[in-house]
Amino acid sequence: MSGSITGKNIQISTWGESHGKALGVVVDGFPAGMEINEEDIQKFLDRRKPGTSPATTPRKEDDLVEILSGVFEGRTTGTPISMIVRNTSQKSSDYSEIAQYYRPGHADYGFDAKYGFRDYRGGGRSSGRETIGRVAAGALCSKLLSQMGIEVTAYTRAIGSVEIDYSKFDKASILANPTAMPDSDADKKAMELIQQARANEDSIGGIIECVIKGVPAGVGEPVFDKLDACLSKAVMSIGAVKAVEIGDGTLVSTYHGSDNNDPFIINDGVVSKETNHSGGILGGISDGTDIIVRAYVKPTPSIARTQHTINKSGENIDINIHGRHDPVVVPRAVVVVETMCAHTILDLMISNMSAQASNIVNFYNNK
Amino acid sequence: MSGSITGKNIQISTWGESHGKALGVVVDGFPAGMEINEEDIQKFLDRRKPGTSPATTPRKEDDLVEILSGVFEGRTTGTPISMIVRNTSQKSSDYSEIAQYYRPGHADYGFDAKYGFRDYRGGGRSSGRETIGRVAAGALCSKLLSQMGIEVTAYTRAIGSVEIDYSKFDKASILANPTAMPDSDADKKAMELIQQARANEDSIGGIIECVIKGVPAGVGEPVFDKLDACLSKAVMSIGAVKAVEIGDGTLVSTYHGSDNNDPFIINDGVVSKETNHSGGILGGISDGTDIIVRAYVKPTPSIARTQHTINKSGENIDINIHGRHDPVVVPRAVVVVETMCAHTILDLMISNMSAQASNIVNFYNNK
Amino acid sequence: MSGSITGKNIQISTWGESHGKALGVVVDGFPAGMEINEEDIQKFLDRRKPGTSPATTPRKEDDLVEILSGVFEGRTTGTPISMIVRNTSQKSSDYSEIAQYYRPGHADYGFDAKYGFRDYRGGGRSSGRETIGRVAAGALCSKLLSQMGIEVTAYTRAIGSVEIDYSKFDKASILANPTAMPDSDADKKAMELIQQARANEDSIGGIIECVIKGVPAGVGEPVFDKLDACLSKAVMSIGAVKAVEIGDGTLVSTYHGSDNNDPFIINDGVVSKETNHSGGILGGISDGTDIIVRAYVKPTPSIARTQHTINKSGENIDINIHGRHDPVVVPRAVVVVETMCAHTILDLMISNMSAQASNIVNFYNNK
Amino acid sequence: MSGSITGKNIQISTWGESHGKALGVVVDGFPAGMEINEEDIQKFLDRRKPGTSPATTPRKEDDLVEILSGVFEGRTTGTPISMIVRNTSQKSSDYSEIAQYYRPGHADYGFDAKYGFRDYRGGGRSSGRETIGRVAAGALCSKLLSQMGIEVTAYTRAIGSVEIDYSKFDKASILANPTAMPDSDADKKAMELIQQARANEDSIGGIIECVIKGVPAGVGEPVFDKLDACLSKAVMSIGAVKAVEIGDGTLVSTYHGSDNNDPFIINDGVVSKETNHSGGILGGISDGTDIIVRAYVKPTPSIARTQHTINKSGENIDINIHGRHDPVVVPRAVVVVETMCAHTILDLMISNMSAQASNIVNFYNNK
Repeated sequence: MSGSITGKNIQISTWGESHGKALGVVVDGFPAGMEINEEDIQKFLDRRKPGTSPATTPRKEDDLVEILSGVFEGRTTGTPISMIVRNTSQKSSDYSEIAQYYRPGHADYGFDAKYGFRDYRGGGRSSGRETIGRVAAGALCSKLLSQMGIEVTAYTRAIGSVEIDYSKFDKASILANPTAMPDSDADKKAMELIQQARANEDSIGGIIECVIKGVPAGVGEPVFDKLDACLSKAVMSIGAVKAVEIGDGTLVSTYHGSDNNDPFIINDGVVSKETNHSGGILGGISDGTDIIVRAYVKPTPSIARTQHTINKSGENIDINIHGRHDPVVVPRAVVVVETMCAHTILDLMISNMSAQASNIVNFYNNK
Repeated sequence: MSGSITGKNIQISTWGESHGKALGVVVDGFPAGMEINEEDIQKFLDRRKPGTSPATTPRKEDDLVEILSGVFEGRTTGTPISMIVRNTSQKSSDYSEIAQYYRPGHADYGFDAKYGFRDYRGGGRSSGRETIGRVAAGALCSKLLSQMGIEVTAYTRAIGSVEIDYSKFDKASILANPTAMPDSDADKKAMELIQQARANEDSIGGIIECVIKGVPAGVGEPVFDKLDACLSKAVMSIGAVKAVEIGDGTLVSTYHGSDNNDPFIINDGVVSKETNHSGGILGGISDGTDIIVRAYVKPTPSIARTQHTINKSGENIDINIHGRHDPVVVPRAVVVVETMCAHTILDLMISNMSAQASNIVNFYNNK
Repeated sequence: MSGSITGKNIQISTWGESHGKALGVVVDGFPAGMEINEEDIQKFLDRRKPGTSPATTPRKEDDLVEILSGVFEGRTTGTPISMIVRNTSQKSSDYSEIAQYYRPGHADYGFDAKYGFRDYRGGGRSSGRETIGRVAAGALCSKLLSQMGIEVTAYTRAIGSVEIDYSKFDKASILANPTAMPDSDADKKAMELIQQARANEDSIGGIIECVIKGVPAGVGEPVFDKLDACLSKAVMSIGAVKAVEIGDGTLVSTYHGSDNNDPFIINDGVVSKETNHSGGILGGISDGTDIIVRAYVKPTPSIARTQHTINKSGENIDINIHGRHDPVVVPRAVVVVETMCAHTILDLMISNMSAQASNIVNFYNNK
Repeated sequence: MSGSITGKNIQISTWGESHGKALGVVVDGFPAGMEINEEDIQKFLDRRKPGTSPATTPRKEDDLVEILSGVFEGRTTGTPISMIVRNTSQKSSDYSEIAQYYRPGHADYGFDAKYGFRDYRGGGRSSGRETIGRVAAGALCSKLLSQMGIEVTAYTRAIGSVEIDYSKFDKASILANPTAMPDSDADKKAMELIQQARANEDSIGGIIECVIKGVPAGVGEPVFDKLDACLSKAVMSIGAVKAVEIGDGTLVSTYHGSDNNDPFIINDGVVSKETNHSGGILGGISDGTDIIVRAYVKPTPSIARTQHTINKSGENIDINIHGRHDPVVVPRAVVVVETMCAHTILDLMISNMSAQASNIVNFYNNK
């Protein structure tokens, strides 16, 4: 009910604060028998690790994951998988001032209104470090999806005004470039914008695009749990995201039906579409073509320059936020978008296994 | 699990097909003691009723609601409220061809892939008529919210290229104008675009904006069930929506932090913000200012002109869709966006009542 | 949250009051493609219909079911199945007194405490008529289970002191005898006890046993959603049930381990157990042998003789409850226990389909 | 879905295996502002700790709890509370044989059927150590309930044939006596039965009774989530429980209505009942009197004497189970029953806060 748990078949329960002892996740319902080890998870966590480039906070955290349960002899057992990452580089003193006022663009004010008080150290539970649990859980999902030929890949589509599109897609470049833009020129220009923002004691936003290949037609539920609705919730639940698009997204409001409809076509028995304005989803159900999700990410709200706000005593004040902040959230959030999408897809694929009575009857009668 | 049920505290279970006997909804968990009658619901349903203007399908349906349970002596009883609307103007013969092929832009192909077959009459469960249950349920929520001074109001922001903004807002005009645009000039221009699209055997898209006033700070859960995440899911689950924005939405990707942060300010003890780029939500929790949600709606996929597609026998064919279709979905979808938002807000406000231990202790100790 | 919805994969949402317009159920998540018609459902509803023997209330209700959605061309479509039964023989005048006082053994007092007021006509939502929706939904589940060779059968094990056991089991006799005891002698003796109770302006209790044959080993979840835990909840949620046992039930408290353990044995490759004290469930998971559930049912609380209670004005009073009441709940509740168990089993069997990663991978890779 | 998560408002997600690195729980939705420290939790865990008396296994585990998140400056923050207990005294070698065969009375066979393989060390996830997470979570709930004057107390009612009743209740004695029977004579006799069972290479069962005082009338939902249904599920989900009773339980099957109905009575404005056969619950809703729940616990299935069973190769074999086992589960399970009941009660009390529209309106309008 408090919503730190998500998923229907694979339920992810995340926990932990920025400056607490540790952060982690419990994954309930992950199926048995998949080979997994800590390195499989670590690879994903390393993509959101701070301190790896000038695009991120200088806070150094190794973010090493430890699997505490649910894996035996190198395979998942079907019982809850508990994973933990210890915090090592907390400097709570950085944040002592924050206890007294409400940072613009942050959840401080809402937390106090809701809970009566808050763990103010580094944003506590509202810190971006909360996503560690999401990434660890999603890494499991991503691995299982790959065994069905499904690839979920997110990349940085834009930093401020520097934007590329999927035609530039190249998986190796995403991981190699500090901005996670798979285009060296764009990456360089984007890095300049980021450096400039930092120099101006400011921050900058961007766009993350996630492309999901290989999902068969038929995944997603037709009413409230539409595939696009579930993806939207998953992606919008990431801290800094303010808009989500599927396929052509906002552009469809200016289209005519004759522009927007994607004609189906069949070649050698293979069904596809002549265009993909729909982003692979029609009526909430996958149509067998690439699924395209786009997240618009706001600039980091923690900026060094002087800002106006109020304090807990109800006074108007000016503040300067100190501490080690990312000038841009986007590059580190790419893997978060990717893993949230992976979880959503796998979860709905499991639901879909019982869509037909004959699937259930065959499963048990053939046992 | 199949997702025709939504909500945590107030659970809405919708049912019914376009050309079945009836459509309806069961609302479980609606609190006891609120005065309600069928007219309260009918008012909302009339806003999505077809056949009321040249902007809609000529199919005539009265869409009269009957309350079957959960109301006694004019008040809700706390037990499930079952509401039903009988279909009266089905002409299933219109749709006999559709059984054989997959309409572009529709869920037909996904339904067959998922379920093995489908009720093809008028789109069956994937028809826009499915939203009748949503609107009836949301009407209940809207009434209770108004008793707390909370107003949820949606209007047509754009039809194709004709766009207005909230400065034009005027509740009476929304309901009076056929496009639900609260600006007579814009409404006229939009009607021309719609008529033109129809004349061209085509359809057109648009934008719906929902403004929620009066929600106190503190509503929404901090991680997966963020207020914006829940609103996104609710709105994206409406058939034709392809993008959802909160506040400045997609624009934030090009902002700097110093543009995007909304300074808090206090005047005579009242907390507000100097700007509202955030759309009333920070870190997934309401900040006490207006909540702004925007839905981008695609053009109706059913168009009269010849289209290319495939049939069930796996052949490439050309089709002409007959039947009575809306040239634009937007005006009738306004009340759907509004009621889905109303349900989401009320549902999370109920969850929020137990955020503090003292709330629970006081509730029971003061009984 | 208000709990008129149950199930994880197949979600049942019941609604309706004893003297309202109608009662019904929406079943979400029932898989597509199963042949079904109203007669399949009616057969089950007829087993709980009143007025069929001296063991039941003389109130006559045909309880005819109408399917409103989710079935097309004789098969389930995978979308919500809405079923409705109209009330025809309400005499609300019978119940006008009840509005003023709290009947012993009934939920009246709790309802007023919870909701502030109640639909007092015939017990409103707390009436046994609420189970109509359960039975209609469970009838669907029972039909699908039978396609996998699974038979769920409940019968009356005891009325007051007249008790039989499963060795007397004979399906035809259950349905033929008015008490639903599959033993003519016991049935006669039980009918005498019932008549005697009625003559004494009193009522009587009994025991219902449900035997589930054919469930493979491996069904049920290991911790909170153990198969026995889910069955207990399902059965205990039926109005008059005050105790639930699995297998040898209460007796195990006096056993030694060497009495209670069921040795596994294999014959010609078929695994079974030498005894079945466990009732087919070990550690919350089915072991492949018969599942045995027992429900202890209290005597009908509505009795004609004078009783002491309080009224809404806070006075101690004596009351005589008029109206048409069952002298015993058991015979009509047999099909309710049976259908609740059928739903629980099928629901957990669906969950179980994704217990192994290879099941998911094979399902999609073999498509 | 896999059911290692339970609760609606306060969601408990347990994890961990008997011989893994650690066990623990994440509690989501626990309200903010309650004072808590590790000692509050430890007190409860110590009641289920092994090695404290001849009634338990000689395995020594300190079972020290560490709170990793969700508590700040000594108070709960409203965000997930993660608690962990490290395993220290695993001797996996004890269990190597078990990998090859299926122990009678255990879940081994079901786990293999379900998951394809299992963590066989000490029963893995099906070990009684799984309850550590339940107890830690329930300790939080118990503390909050006590602030509303609600006391949840469980005790040993019977070990084998030695049975006492609630008239012997004395809280101090429960905690002081090794069997958790609050009666020294009975405790001594029970200990003799236990020693005798152990001497015979056998084990013994018993009964746990839980008494819940102070719950106001109105708690529990009227249909599927009846208070008694939820309590039954919570208690039946504890490994060794095979039957659950509410109030007079199984006895009601032999009662007449005139015996079983509890007359309401009012004295000086205080409503009570002349008797409490119902165990404080009518129609699934609390009636304001003591709630009585009884759990029947089977004898420990691990016994030293020779037993017959099958192995993974499909052979009939004789086995002798070695290792350190409890000769009786009951004394250590008392606190598990108690904490599961505490969680269930608190969870439903939170749901109940929104049963009336006026509660919601007043909560927000008085803010």
